[in-house]
Amino acid sequence: MKKRCTVVFGMLAAAMLLSEPLAAYGAAKISDDTQACLGCHETVTPGIVADWKKSQHANVSPEDALKRPLLEKRVSFKTPPKAIQATAVGCAECHTLNPKAHKDTFDHNGFKVHVVVSPKDCAACHPQEVDEYGQNIMSEAHGNLVKNPVYKSLMDAANCMQKFDGVRARLTTVDKLTEEDSCIYCHGTKVEVNGIKSRETSMGEMEFPVLSGWPSGGVGRINPDGTKGACSACHTRHAFSIETARKPATCSECHKGPDVPAYKVYQVSKHGNLYGSEGDKWNFGAVPWTVGKDFTAPTCATCHASLVVNEAGDVVAKRSHKMNDRSAWRLFGLPYAHPHPKSADTTIIKNKAGLPLPTELTGEPAAGYLIDKKEQTKRRASMREICLQCHATSWVDGHFARLENTVETTNQMTRVSTDIILAAWKKGLAKGLDKKDSTFNEAIERMWVEQWLFYANSTRFASAMGGADYGVFADGRWYMSKNIQQMADWLRFLEAAHKGEKNGNVKKVK
Amino acid sequence: MKKRCTVVFGMLAAAMLLSEPLAAYGAAKISDDTQACLGCHETVTPGIVADWKKSQHANVSPEDALKRPLLEKRVSFKTPPKAIQATAVGCAECHTLNPKAHKDTFDHNGFKVHVVVSPKDCAACHPQEVDEYGQNIMSEAHGNLVKNPVYKSLMDAANCMQKFDGVRARLTTVDKLTEEDSCIYCHGTKVEVNGIKSRETSMGEMEFPVLSGWPSGGVGRINPDGTKGACSACHTRHAFSIETARKPATCSECHKGPDVPAYKVYQVSKHGNLYGSEGDKWNFGAVPWTVGKDFTAPTCATCHASLVVNEAGDVVAKRSHKMNDRSAWRLFGLPYAHPHPKSADTTIIKNKAGLPLPTELTGEPAAGYLIDKKEQTKRRASMREICLQCHATSWVDGHFARLENTVETTNQMTRVSTDIILAAWKKGLAKGLDKKDSTFNEAIERMWVEQWLFYANSTRFASAMGGADYGVFADGRWYMSKNIQQMADWLRFLEAAHKGEKNGNVKKVK
Amino acid sequence: MKKRCTVVFGMLAAAMLLSEPLAAYGAAKISDDTQACLGCHETVTPGIVADWKKSQHANVSPEDALKRPLLEKRVSFKTPPKAIQATAVGCAECHTLNPKAHKDTFDHNGFKVHVVVSPKDCAACHPQEVDEYGQNIMSEAHGNLVKNPVYKSLMDAANCMQKFDGVRARLTTVDKLTEEDSCIYCHGTKVEVNGIKSRETSMGEMEFPVLSGWPSGGVGRINPDGTKGACSACHTRHAFSIETARKPATCSECHKGPDVPAYKVYQVSKHGNLYGSEGDKWNFGAVPWTVGKDFTAPTCATCHASLVVNEAGDVVAKRSHKMNDRSAWRLFGLPYAHPHPKSADTTIIKNKAGLPLPTELTGEPAAGYLIDKKEQTKRRASMREICLQCHATSWVDGHFARLENTVETTNQMTRVSTDIILAAWKKGLAKGLDKKDSTFNEAIERMWVEQWLFYANSTRFASAMGGADYGVFADGRWYMSKNIQQMADWLRFLEAAHKGEKNGNVKKVK
Repeated sequence: MKKRCTVVFGMLAAAMLLSEPLAAYGAAKISDDTQACLGCHETVTPGIVADWKKSQHANVSPEDALKRPLLEKRVSFKTPPKAIQATAVGCAECHTLNPKAHKDTFDHNGFKVHVVVSPKDCAACHPQEVDEYGQNIMSEAHGNLVKNPVYKSLMDAANCMQKFDGVRARLTTVDKLTEEDSCIYCHGTKVEVNGIKSRETSMGEMEFPVLSGWPSGGVGRINPDGTKGACSACHTRHAFSIETARKPATCSECHKGPDVPAYKVYQVSKHGNLYGSEGDKWNFGAVPWTVGKDFTAPTCATCHASLVVNEAGDVVAKRSHKMNDRSAWRLFGLPYAHPHPKSADTTIIKNKAGLPLPTELTGEPAAGYLIDKKEQTKRRASMREICLQCHATSWVDGHFARLENTVETTNQMTRVSTDIILAAWKKGLAKGLDKKDSTFNEAIERMWVEQWLFYANSTRFASAMGGADYGVFADGRWYMSKNIQQMADWLRFLEAAHKGEKNGNVKKVK
Repeated sequence: MKKRCTVVFGMLAAAMLLSEPLAAYGAAKISDDTQACLGCHETVTPGIVADWKKSQHANVSPEDALKRPLLEKRVSFKTPPKAIQATAVGCAECHTLNPKAHKDTFDHNGFKVHVVVSPKDCAACHPQEVDEYGQNIMSEAHGNLVKNPVYKSLMDAANCMQKFDGVRARLTTVDKLTEEDSCIYCHGTKVEVNGIKSRETSMGEMEFPVLSGWPSGGVGRINPDGTKGACSACHTRHAFSIETARKPATCSECHKGPDVPAYKVYQVSKHGNLYGSEGDKWNFGAVPWTVGKDFTAPTCATCHASLVVNEAGDVVAKRSHKMNDRSAWRLFGLPYAHPHPKSADTTIIKNKAGLPLPTELTGEPAAGYLIDKKEQTKRRASMREICLQCHATSWVDGHFARLENTVETTNQMTRVSTDIILAAWKKGLAKGLDKKDSTFNEAIERMWVEQWLFYANSTRFASAMGGADYGVFADGRWYMSKNIQQMADWLRFLEAAHKGEKNGNVKKVK
Repeated sequence: MKKRCTVVFGMLAAAMLLSEPLAAYGAAKISDDTQACLGCHETVTPGIVADWKKSQHANVSPEDALKRPLLEKRVSFKTPPKAIQATAVGCAECHTLNPKAHKDTFDHNGFKVHVVVSPKDCAACHPQEVDEYGQNIMSEAHGNLVKNPVYKSLMDAANCMQKFDGVRARLTTVDKLTEEDSCIYCHGTKVEVNGIKSRETSMGEMEFPVLSGWPSGGVGRINPDGTKGACSACHTRHAFSIETARKPATCSECHKGPDVPAYKVYQVSKHGNLYGSEGDKWNFGAVPWTVGKDFTAPTCATCHASLVVNEAGDVVAKRSHKMNDRSAWRLFGLPYAHPHPKSADTTIIKNKAGLPLPTELTGEPAAGYLIDKKEQTKRRASMREICLQCHATSWVDGHFARLENTVETTNQMTRVSTDIILAAWKKGLAKGLDKKDSTFNEAIERMWVEQWLFYANSTRFASAMGGADYGVFADGRWYMSKNIQQMADWLRFLEAAHKGEKNGNVKKVK
């Protein structure tokens, strides 16, 4: 009896530690190839191996994963990929898959190993997720930034070195490592192979590919096999845990700064309060994810990505790796909030003025490239379905009425700041579009940038999520309003300084 | 034996999940009315029902709640309300209570249901808490803001749209939805009923009241029954958990911005460190709450609200929903920190200059409306009693000596900034009280606002709670000092610009 | 059987609560002296006693602590201190140790008790840790700040009161309590004894020493026995838990503000994401600390202080209370990032210009006082060893290449801002070194300070830890670049204002 008790205890303890229950299909066998990898890597990179061992990948084979009931499935293939169907998904299964497609494949102890596992590799078992992610604007985050000349000049305004000539400071050059350590860190680097280099290791002399743009975990990473994206951005290596991806800390890596304060807003929202207070008791590993039973309040994933059901087993929201299909608006202003772009690749957008922007400088949307009202209504309805699990219709209606109003009013406040910057350009007190100069590189232009990139965005995120002071004093309406006053004063100061300088009274020092 | 083991396991597991132990009085029976509600709402709003099922309300009847020993009681009535004494406190018990008093009562499947459960409803079982909350300045948060013309003009300075005329930007209008999404979100909206509207539901066509000012969870909400406050602001629906209310994340919803950075200060304080490091092992559900046994370091609730005892069973601090009865000072400067107001309704305050402010512009307190030194001493003594559970007298004395000094010095720094703004008005470089203009709507005036609302407040909160950098570089003394220098320079720049403009050299563009 | 089950359950429950397992040496006996303390203090300061009871100190005697295997040891003496070897380390063991050395020793119920337990007291059992901490720059944090005239003037720029004369505001005086509540709060106060005072207590009239500089928990505290430091800054009283010290919240107390945003950066890093998502399942009490098994991602302690091993039992990183021996650079710019100082006491440093700074104003390091390239390489190698447990060489190399580049580029951006401030001094628009005035007390000078103290630091911390937006929009490169533009404009505005004032057009108001 004592023994039986102990066994039960052991199972209880295991069940408590392992919050993503591995279905009772028996643990998966590890392939010989992966066993060979582990032979060295358990010693060489023990942290990776330990992390992987806790994963679903290490414990469930693709063919067993397929046996789960429809809503419990974590794979989306119809038939498992032959070569890897019967074993755990280990080192070899991912890092030696389809070796010819990967420019970073190298000979490694008799294996053709590639360093960068790409979405195409993941698609062997998760084709639907990879397909959806291709429609997610995040998968195009690299090109959408660096191939759009307007956004690239904003990037330069952050990253370029400067030089001071005694009166004015001007942008000079920028280097690749800085960009990769800055904007491109989240947007995703372009990973390239620059030959092979040999190096002494604990296992003797070995050859490895030389990568540039590495390390890289950004959502729009350009991979050596030509694909875009990094699933590990959210499903962190090497546990690739759904639990981690569902927790808001994961999203915070790229969504916390003043430009996209989504995480900070969430934290002070009532939903975030509940997560902060009670989240440690919720079940983040359950598939599907049952509202009320598994969690009390939504996290980022609940509203934007996860498969959510109710206790009756009805699907409340479908799993989506496109992620914006419940979002009527792109709240992120460029410079104005606008209906979501139709295409994940936003470099194709041109407004009437010929600029690669989703709105005119007046705020008018570049409608042809953006979803229409019907699609907005559809998306809003999908989102509302989730809200309605815990809130009555009048509550939800009231909430979205305020959000619509906030989109409108914050765009108005962006417009007022745009009027000031247009006046600055017209008066010759700053150099902008008319002089074919960057619109983001002078002090007053940067104040304009902060109006929409920081303050209007913060206010809109707060409105969307109930983020209290992020719509008021914490980079919210107070700053939108104050910034306009400061911009107007700054313009007056520029004018006063300019006149003195024209009169020949300023001499360069240094 | 195996079965017995399983039962014990089950109980162990239950005990671990249910951190607010439901005394062994047997689970409460659910009333027929509530059962009728659940019949549909388990399907229609499953999240609400699941949340409620975990609550004390769902599991303990009022008459059983009364049987608990004095210090363990969570109700404050003498005799349970007849109609609901014997059953769980469910949907019907709260939402159909006293239907005539509620303007939002409507016919719903044969029941007279009201949407907004008010403090008066809660008072059926918690009369003392509701009475105390009525003395809490938070219960008057709506009127204290919108009915005080000075504060209302600060609110407008945040929320109003603006217009740029080519030289200056001016405030224009503000709409109700913006206010409800901004300041009023925390202060509490006025919820009003605008008729009844019929709508298609999954249960067929039904009628519902049309509410404005909804959704609403602000602490000073004006309810359709005329009462003030929302208990659910902290005791979040529909678990109404004491655990949640005791955790600092709950307070963070309204106390995190630069104006009231209490939560951020707490997080970096030694107390907050301990909560962040070890809080997951503390017992937040115990009533009463035993220092040392249930928790190692205080949360917001410990110092300001909770019933705290020591292991000997002595009461260290009484439960208080008035919440300021351990606070000698109102650290929140308007514009100066001052002894706490006597009345929760602060609209009655008038300073010597006739302004509805608790101090003069010089800092002198409007003493008649504020607690006197004797009351301050008494409140300080109540707070000290809590500190002394873990700190020796010399530690506590030293701490409060620094706080008193910080109140004094931060008020001095507010005074210096006030001198600058008075000079700006006098020189005609900004329009203020003398011109009957808002004192908060121009750039330099907003710098003045930030001096006391952001920097002096942050410094004082940091001093009160050991908040380290929030008293130095994080919106603290560095900013108080820098802001004065920037205001003085800004005044010089305004003067230079003003002269140029008088000479007719500025022409309006646009 | 049922009983046996219950016993096992109890042990299971205990094991789950007690995450720092107390080796099975039997609980330590409490000394008679400590028993005497507890007699009153269990009632008088129950929080302290409850906290201590959970500690290793309360449960393991020094002689038992010594019996642990080498890597599991938490003490570093060769032989236990005689007087306290056989009992728990309780109140008396620490607070009556070596009474003559402590100026704060007083007669207390027949015992010679000192209030402030110093590193020298801790050294009775932990001599190596105390010795290492003496080489930690933090142990000199008090003197390094207040005895360096340049840094002291920065401190004054934050803490001094000001006076406005109608045109300019100037720094006036500062008081001791403000400094202790501000910079010195983290750096550590000087604790001094100012006599003995008698006071009524619950145990009758008693005498206690009067301390100034108290309370105090700063890392460089000057203790009444002349030693420097406070072990309790991280090993919080009175559990002195290694778990707490290993959790990042502990470091956040002093490393969260805009000057040292290490904690904020960590939180949004991938490592911090994992800690935020999964950290509640990690074992923070294990000694030694096994990578992969006990934790998945590093905390502050992992990289900078802890004894880390791999599952094979190899030492990955030695325990270090010097803490900078894995840090090649001092990323914290003063004003430029520089190789780490050799000596913990940095007041000995003089640059070529004769200033007590680790670099020239041009950025050139004061090389003689700083570690050389060889030592940098050695330190970098120690840090890399930790990274390599979970990351391949190419990943780690790429990471550090970016960090080196960021050190270089952020120093360049500091240099550009220095050029502007030098121009301001030369033009007479601000008073700096040449006028023997503080270099930090005017508005434009404070903008310069923020360039390196806030923005360059934030960018470097983000680069070192993968802190995403803290290197871009959250006090990162965007602000470095914008600040230079604003400083250049401000200089033009100062010039315009200055000219008007010379022409006699400004009259002082007030």
